[in-house]
Amino acid sequence: MQENYMQFPKTAANYVPLSPVSFLSRAEALHGARTAVIYGDIKRSWTDMASRVRLVASGLMSAGIGKGDTVSVLCPNIPELFELHFALPLTGGVINTLNTRLEPETIAYILDHADSKLVIVDRELIPLLTRAFEALGREIPVIEITDPNQPTTHTLGGSTYEDLLERGHPVGTIGLPDDEWDAIALNYTSGTSGRPKGVVYHHRGAYLMALGTVAAWKKPHYPVYLSVVPMFHCNGWGHPWVIAMLGGTMVFTRTPTPDLILDAIRQHGVTHFGAAPIVLQMLAEAETGETAAFEPPIKVLTAGAPPPPSVLEKTRSMGLDVMQVYGLTETYGHISKCLWQESWGDLDAREQAELQAQQGIALPMVEAVSVIDSETGQPVRRDGETQGEIGVRGNTVMKGYYKDPEATAKAFENGWFWSGDAAVVHADGYMQIRDRLKDVIISGGENISSVEVEAALYRHPSVQAAAVVAMPHEKWGEVPCAFVELRSGAQTSADEIIAFCRGHLAGFKAPKAVVFQNLPKTSTGKIQKFQLREAAKSMST
Amino acid sequence: MQENYMQFPKTAANYVPLSPVSFLSRAEALHGARTAVIYGDIKRSWTDMASRVRLVASGLMSAGIGKGDTVSVLCPNIPELFELHFALPLTGGVINTLNTRLEPETIAYILDHADSKLVIVDRELIPLLTRAFEALGREIPVIEITDPNQPTTHTLGGSTYEDLLERGHPVGTIGLPDDEWDAIALNYTSGTSGRPKGVVYHHRGAYLMALGTVAAWKKPHYPVYLSVVPMFHCNGWGHPWVIAMLGGTMVFTRTPTPDLILDAIRQHGVTHFGAAPIVLQMLAEAETGETAAFEPPIKVLTAGAPPPPSVLEKTRSMGLDVMQVYGLTETYGHISKCLWQESWGDLDAREQAELQAQQGIALPMVEAVSVIDSETGQPVRRDGETQGEIGVRGNTVMKGYYKDPEATAKAFENGWFWSGDAAVVHADGYMQIRDRLKDVIISGGENISSVEVEAALYRHPSVQAAAVVAMPHEKWGEVPCAFVELRSGAQTSADEIIAFCRGHLAGFKAPKAVVFQNLPKTSTGKIQKFQLREAAKSMST
Repeated sequence: MQENYMQFPKTAANYVPLSPVSFLSRAEALHGARTAVIYGDIKRSWTDMASRVRLVASGLMSAGIGKGDTVSVLCPNIPELFELHFALPLTGGVINTLNTRLEPETIAYILDHADSKLVIVDRELIPLLTRAFEALGREIPVIEITDPNQPTTHTLGGSTYEDLLERGHPVGTIGLPDDEWDAIALNYTSGTSGRPKGVVYHHRGAYLMALGTVAAWKKPHYPVYLSVVPMFHCNGWGHPWVIAMLGGTMVFTRTPTPDLILDAIRQHGVTHFGAAPIVLQMLAEAETGETAAFEPPIKVLTAGAPPPPSVLEKTRSMGLDVMQVYGLTETYGHISKCLWQESWGDLDAREQAELQAQQGIALPMVEAVSVIDSETGQPVRRDGETQGEIGVRGNTVMKGYYKDPEATAKAFENGWFWSGDAAVVHADGYMQIRDRLKDVIISGGENISSVEVEAALYRHPSVQAAAVVAMPHEKWGEVPCAFVELRSGAQTSADEIIAFCRGHLAGFKAPKAVVFQNLPKTSTGKIQKFQLREAAKSMST
Repeated sequence: MQENYMQFPKTAANYVPLSPVSFLSRAEALHGARTAVIYGDIKRSWTDMASRVRLVASGLMSAGIGKGDTVSVLCPNIPELFELHFALPLTGGVINTLNTRLEPETIAYILDHADSKLVIVDRELIPLLTRAFEALGREIPVIEITDPNQPTTHTLGGSTYEDLLERGHPVGTIGLPDDEWDAIALNYTSGTSGRPKGVVYHHRGAYLMALGTVAAWKKPHYPVYLSVVPMFHCNGWGHPWVIAMLGGTMVFTRTPTPDLILDAIRQHGVTHFGAAPIVLQMLAEAETGETAAFEPPIKVLTAGAPPPPSVLEKTRSMGLDVMQVYGLTETYGHISKCLWQESWGDLDAREQAELQAQQGIALPMVEAVSVIDSETGQPVRRDGETQGEIGVRGNTVMKGYYKDPEATAKAFENGWFWSGDAAVVHADGYMQIRDRLKDVIISGGENISSVEVEAALYRHPSVQAAAVVAMPHEKWGEVPCAFVELRSGAQTSADEIIAFCRGHLAGFKAPKAVVFQNLPKTSTGKIQKFQLREAAKSMST
């Protein structure tokens, strides 16, 4: 009698496209009087926030932004960027947050590749944007954000975010996308082949990411969340949407310095935040006095190269309850977590730190995070030894790479998204990364493409051949280390090479060490990077 | 550049139909060694459970069950019913759990209306099924569950659940539906117009219900959940799927008596359960000694007529942390919750109990639960006085009523599912039910259609006219009260009328009081029930 079950059309009552903009109407309807935003002297309720969002959305629509239009945002974590995570999706547009640490050339590349129709820029970053426009050879319409907490004289003389608020007229109800598969965000990776790739998120994925994160992280109602993870990284690991869902408060400091973070925690009763390991390390170093531990402990997510045991020990004694998560830009951020196991309580601090640094187990909204044997296509044995590549399958895997069907098809071969991380699985089912198959260096929470750094090196007239690999670094986790083969008769120094790279790359991408040597090659002339990785492991700056 | 965002086909890597069967593969992969089921001497891991489910699913498929086939299950809460919540969806079939308290005639009606291809029955309930088959006038293939904890001599001689396990051959991977909109369950309501209506659930809704429940109820990993809410009510409020998602343990007692419940809590470290108010009341009455409160408190969901203040006070002192939720069969169960507010801490017990009994605010996976003014179609003012009808919109609203397009269309008029509950909204956004627009009496957690009871009364030769309304009852919350107008010259007694009804209805549906009087009618002859409701409010047995 199958046909009897097939005769149900979807209606407005029982089918709603999954979208995180629903969480804003929810927060407004149920928690309107609660505080949505704290930033310096600014304090806004969810009622205020929702009405500002609607004004901004209608202002953007008046400015011609509509379905499928990319709007780039160059801005630190401040309330306006939070608001844009709702206002832009409401217009049908796609939010493209730009990493404020990038060099102008890469920003120019992204603005061009992303087909940006508009750039919304924090005035302090106008010099960077100006240089990006110079590199681009053309200008794109701009809206300027004037942050009262960061006065500046920079301006391009264009219209402002405040104008949007004034020009906008409130729209009655908050609109959902026609289709939950519609794009919501465009986030560029560092790109392993040298060029950043544009990762497209959809409303369905962003919704499930938020709901799954709450289910997995057991966030209470009304968390007070400190915005540390840049929103240009996977939209702040999805937290603009998570916090709306819970009617929580987002606390901003604009700059994530240890002093500002610790002050904000104490002043506003922060309960949760996410941060790169480097931030935890800075907090551990900043907290030297005999200050009482936070009580109850603050829940902290971290991702990337794991913090060293000493840092985890220190942060624990400070009252920070840190959980390691794992994910990629392509997976909307975290998709697995290293859930603490009761049995770890008896181990010593070093053993605990090692276990805590594992990639752990899949979050509930992901269908599967498996370590796949490349030979058999099957999950590896759970022996803690057999390596495979982490594959991901689920609704929080990107739509694909923008305007790059080849890379998209390659990323999704055989029904998995391939992470490029080689890992093992332990008997308890916890994954642990053992090696990186892609040429990426993770430094202070930022991904660096070794290919991009190599390309800069090859532009130096003395360089015959170059290879860049990760080198361990106490503060940054990893830094780029360059191995350089000089042209016959050429003379240069490590300092000169590094200075040259800094002229062509964002500072964090420049090599921190240069080794001059003939590069090991295969019989077909391919550089054997694994040998260089081994060599770099024993070095450090 | 909208077209650039449209060129992403869904692939196996990034699009997975939302279905709660995913949670079983998750539990097996990540929590295989943990305990899934405890029932008397039976204790099974998630590995065992998943392999049994696959065997049962393949056995059912061998027996001809496939996509869109209804399989009815007449069974108390025991591990087999838990397993069937995965095994049946895996076959593509639809699970139709039958209320074991119903009369044979209604079961016969449901089996017929549901197009059941197979009935899976616990042997203790074979006498009830036999009478249902007699009423139906035909038999349907049967599989018998033999519960080792409840020996019985009843059998129809057919094949058993154990045969399924033996006949089945493990299927490699657990299958997902082709389409998340496919039906997963068929749950019959009491029916306000006398006939039960078949509410169809889909995989998408069941998945979101589970994920949203965990997000809203902040369940930790590995909860130990006591199965008290019958799985024939909204599939146990979705908990077979919730517990799999969390790798938790489901504890069964078969019968939810206070002694068994309290024993199970103490013996197995139960952390969570859901129960009708009547069960909480029985627990409060059973716990007379000087027993220590449960520590940490046990989280309890309750729904239906709110427990009286004295019960809430007692259960709180016992260490039961009770939260009122609200929902209907049509909404997969709970869709709103009365979240405790900090400011309530200072009130006295009676005021707290009154506030705790509110219907509260929407759960996160529901788009909207609003109280709508029937005149304007807009939400009512938040003044605690203006009444409207609770409307629901979201992905956990049923597909519709099985084979009843008229009732479906009516239920979904104007883009809302209409609950039939009249409510107000307080200034804090919390809803509170004030009246019931549908003719339903809620007695001990069961819904009773007053129309059905009236139909039984009209079959009595002395009855000229009859109307049934709810009467308050200390133990059951509400019970049916009959107002009867006798035929001229007829003579009978309340006891005789009640006995007559018990011969035609399940015991809980029979009136508990009968009042003989002329019925108040409008000028067009319609019985004015509101007057009778007022009269019944001041009565009690």
